[in-house]
Order: sequence, then structure tokens, then C-alpha cells
Amino acid sequence: MIMKGSLVERVLAGDPYAVARAISLVEVEGPEGTDLVRQVFNRDGHAYIIGITGPPGVGKSTFVDRLTSEIRSRELTVGVIAIDPTSPYTGGAVLGDRIRMQTHACDPGVFIRSMAARGNLGGVSRATGDAATILDRAGKDVILIETVGVGQDEVDIVRMADVSIVMVMPDTGNEVQVLKAGIMEIADVFVVNKADLEGADRTVAQIESVVDLQEYAVETWKPPVMMTQAVTKEGVREVFDKIEQFRSHHVEDSGLRNRNRTEFRLRELLARRFVDYVEYRMLKGDEFEQIVSRIADRTLDPYTAVDEIMSRLNQGN
Amino acid sequence: MIMKGSLVERVLAGDPYAVARAISLVEVEGPEGTDLVRQVFNRDGHAYIIGITGPPGVGKSTFVDRLTSEIRSRELTVGVIAIDPTSPYTGGAVLGDRIRMQTHACDPGVFIRSMAARGNLGGVSRATGDAATILDRAGKDVILIETVGVGQDEVDIVRMADVSIVMVMPDTGNEVQVLKAGIMEIADVFVVNKADLEGADRTVAQIESVVDLQEYAVETWKPPVMMTQAVTKEGVREVFDKIEQFRSHHVEDSGLRNRNRTEFRLRELLARRFVDYVEYRMLKGDEFEQIVSRIADRTLDPYTAVDEIMSRLNQGN
Repeated sequence: MIMKGSLVERVLAGDPYAVARAISLVEVEGPEGTDLVRQVFNRDGHAYIIGITGPPGVGKSTFVDRLTSEIRSRELTVGVIAIDPTSPYTGGAVLGDRIRMQTHACDPGVFIRSMAARGNLGGVSRATGDAATILDRAGKDVILIETVGVGQDEVDIVRMADVSIVMVMPDTGNEVQVLKAGIMEIADVFVVNKADLEGADRTVAQIESVVDLQEYAVETWKPPVMMTQAVTKEGVREVFDKIEQFRSHHVEDSGLRNRNRTEFRLRELLARRFVDYVEYRMLKGDEFEQIVSRIADRTLDPYTAVDEIMSRLNQGN
Repeated sequence: MIMKGSLVERVLAGDPYAVARAISLVEVEGPEGTDLVRQVFNRDGHAYIIGITGPPGVGKSTFVDRLTSEIRSRELTVGVIAIDPTSPYTGGAVLGDRIRMQTHACDPGVFIRSMAARGNLGGVSRATGDAATILDRAGKDVILIETVGVGQDEVDIVRMADVSIVMVMPDTGNEVQVLKAGIMEIADVFVVNKADLEGADRTVAQIESVVDLQEYAVETWKPPVMMTQAVTKEGVREVFDKIEQFRSHHVEDSGLRNRNRTEFRLRELLARRFVDYVEYRMLKGDEFEQIVSRIADRTLDPYTAVDEIMSRLNQGN
């Protein structure tokens, strides 16, 4: 179904080729991607964003695949954004895409896209945010954002979601290990996958006991700890029921989440634009390189360097 | 050994209490920490920085503990910075510190510090960079930076090191899993820990085959894949020998690494300072909040918002 019309029109009409093209544009950070986001930004969209994270090997891709099937069975459309850390050995996201595409390849109600986690200063989360905006404006009902790992970057990405699922493996569940993951604070729902493995019950009990250490106001959502076997789809329906329950519980909070992620995105964008501005416009010639050299050989400290650059802002450069 | 003199003098003399205090200051990001870094920045230091990363459960803490013993046996002093993702359930780094401190608690040649991975926009890597500067100027011979996870944030932290160790677990070693980790590109040395577990040989072979896919110039370092059992210290000596070999191999490259990490730190600092400047000085009253609200309710798109803020830079606000 190749449609006629501008890229923006085709994205808004939900044309998967246009959506794929649009996400590629925001991924490379050119002016075309920026313009596209500008043009679709004020349009309608009602997608509910589900963030899913957890360590490598926990079974996230399989879980996302089965959750997609579950959501489709309820006649809702799905957009999947899978963040794959870049690897120069594989070309990063390409391999992931091929593996993921198989189950839902022929379903027009599912759009799946892997994105590479390259770059720094919030590049990944910016691109992920723009991709979610595109999928939302393209009319998807649910967006799944899947990210690997437990670092700050993953926390940032999952924060963009309306609901956050943290997946945990049985047997990594000795207490220190689980606490170390440091992502407990962002979990709205815990999922202990591979529930057939030894130690699953113990892991559930341990997470529950840690959750119980917190005090909850009567009205506050207390993160449930659920068990799944993604491979057989066992427990996946129950997780989506729980997400729906969270969603109706949190109607009044979703405005706050939207605000928080908006603020986060704005800060990241500002930061990036400013560094580019300093490097390529405010400083002349190889001035930036020279500053770096002076810091590298310790004749200038980075804080003084930043002070000097900032002071030039108010002097018309 | 509580010493007299200013905090800076005591840090430069290697007083562990002063070093601990100094790292606390840079961690909270106040002007005191900034001043301290400024004052020690141009002083001498010769520390070699070893970055260690890998997924939760791979045995990093134990490995770092045994590696510290190995380095001490060669009569070198060690500073350890362990990045623990913040958890509101435990107070984050505190628990880690207690567990880590035990083996080397009475050795004045070892300084161990856990840092919480809170904040965004490079907060962790900035604090880690400053802490490494402090340990270097305090005279440590080797600095170990240990970080959990496989996200961009970890990659950034490990990039600050002179040599990067990537730890892998046996049996997570099916091909897709390893590739997914996405940290292969930053590894100078791979360590397959828990080598007694089934699948260790297979994991080594798989990583080696992936490494072999790359082309190497004759002079280029090809990342070796080593096996350890950190618990029994087996293989740890060999890893440090390999690090020394890498170090002598890379004498000419270490200047480049220093430059790259300097550039990275400068960008992060600039970004952070600018966002604070916009939010608290350039914009008046609740203007920042209002911009966020307009984006949140879709009447303004983030790129246009950033354009408008940037355009005010050149108009004397």
C-alpha cells in the first residue's frame, strides 16, 4: 500500500513505508527529520506507551513479541521501538530487526523498528522520543519501547513511557543483585520471566519484600510482581490486564508523566543544540580543539574553560 | 592519619579522609567541588585507568576485589570507583560500599568509593571523571572504574579509561545475546568469568569468532578473550599481565584517549551549564515551565521551542 501525497500526509494516514522513512529521518538527526516532527507535532494521537527494560538474556524480545500478539488479539494496533546498542560487528540494529520481524511481518497492524543506541548527550532518547511521536501521530494504539540494560540511558528511555515494565530473571535474584539493578524505582510492574526456571518463586518473593519496604499511601499504585514464560506466552495476558488496570488507575497521573517527559526532552535538545552552537559557531577555527588540548595537557581545567565560554554568551561572542 | 592543611593540600598528599571528602564534594555538584577540581587540575598524577563493565551477576565486584589484590601484590596503589545505579530502596551506593570495603579495609594503599548513578545529562560521567582526577592527583598508581550494565552511560564511563575490560558470563553466550550487549566495540580485553560454569569454552570461542570477523592492521591490538574464576582468583594475574601488555603496546595511543575523554567531558559540562543557564537565568519567572506546558499540550513543538531559545542568545536575551 504505497500512498501518494507528502511524507507528512502519508505518516498521518499510517502508511508503514512513510513511517519507516520518517523514523529513519529522525534517527540521522538531519533538518528533514526535525521538520517532519515539527509538522506532525500538533496533530492528534492517542497511543499508550509501554516501556520495557531488563538485563540481556531476560527474554525481552520474546516477551515483546508475545505481548504484541496479545495486544493485537484485543484489536489494538501496535508500534514497537526496540533499542539495540550499536555494535560495529553486526551493524547494530539490523540483525535485531530481522529476528524480530518474523512473527508479525504480515500484520499491517504491527510496525516494528529497531533503533541503534549510538551517540551520546541524549541522542538515543531524543530519537526514541521522536519515533514515538511519529508512531503516535500515525495512529498506533499502543507503543512498546524495548531497551536493553540497566544504565541511566535506559532509565531515561523508560521514563518516556506511560507505564514501565522491568523484567527480571530468576536466580539473578540474590538480594544484592536485584538491588544493584537500580531500576526498581522506575518499575510500575515487575515481570519475572522464565518462570519455569528454579528460583523464580524466590525471586518474586525477594522483589516483593523489597517493594514492601517502601511506604505507600492508600491511593498509590504498588508495583505488582508477575511471573511469565514468554516462550509459551504464559502470563502475558495477565501482564497486559495489569497494564490496563494501571492505566485506569493512573488517568490523573498521565498528564504529569507527559509533562515530565516533555521537560526531559526539551533539556536534552537544548543541551545538544548548545554544544553544537559553541563548537561550530561561537568558537572560531580550531578554537574548540585548542581548548580541548589545553585541558588534556592540564594547563586549563574544564570548569574554567566552561566559565570562559559561558561568559562570552553575554558579550555578543 | 588525619593531616593538617587545606583540603587541596591533603588531597595532593594522599590523605584518604581528604580524598573521600573531595569525592563527596564533586558528587553533589556544588561550587566547592568545582573549586577543588580547579585547584588540583594542573598538578601531577600518573594513574593508569582501567574500566570494567558487564551485565549484573557476571561477578564484577569480586573480580575488582581480586584484581585489586593482584595490583597490590605488585606494590602499586589502587583507587576503585564503583558506579552503583541509584536505588531509592537502598540509598544506592551505601550498601555497595559496605560489601566492597571488607577485604581491603585495612590497606592504606587501597581507596574504594561507590558512586550513585543518579541524574542525567552526563551527571554520572562528570562526577566519575572528577573522582578519577582526584584519585590521580592523590597519587594512586592504578584507578579501577567499575560500572554495571550495557547502556550508553556505561559506554561513556568506560570510554574514560585507558583500557577497557568487558566481562561476559558463560551461557549467555548464544550468538545473538553477546552481540546484543553492544559493548564489544569498546572492549580492549574480554574476560569470561565463572569459567567453571558449563558453556565457558563455547562463550570464549564465540566471542573470538566475532572478534575475528573484524579486520586488524598488523600493528592493531586485537582484543584477547580471557577466562577467570574471580572467586578463586584464577586467571586474574593473567588479566593484569595482559593489561600491562596493552599499556606498553598503546603508549602512543594514550595521548589520543586522553584527548577524546577530555573532549567528551568538556561537551557534557557545557551542556549541563547551558541548560541551567537557560532555565534559571535566561528565562524569567515560570517561562521554562510555560514552554514545557505548551509542548506537553502540543501547541508548540520542541524543535521550534529550542530554535526560539537559541535565537535569544544573540539578542542579549
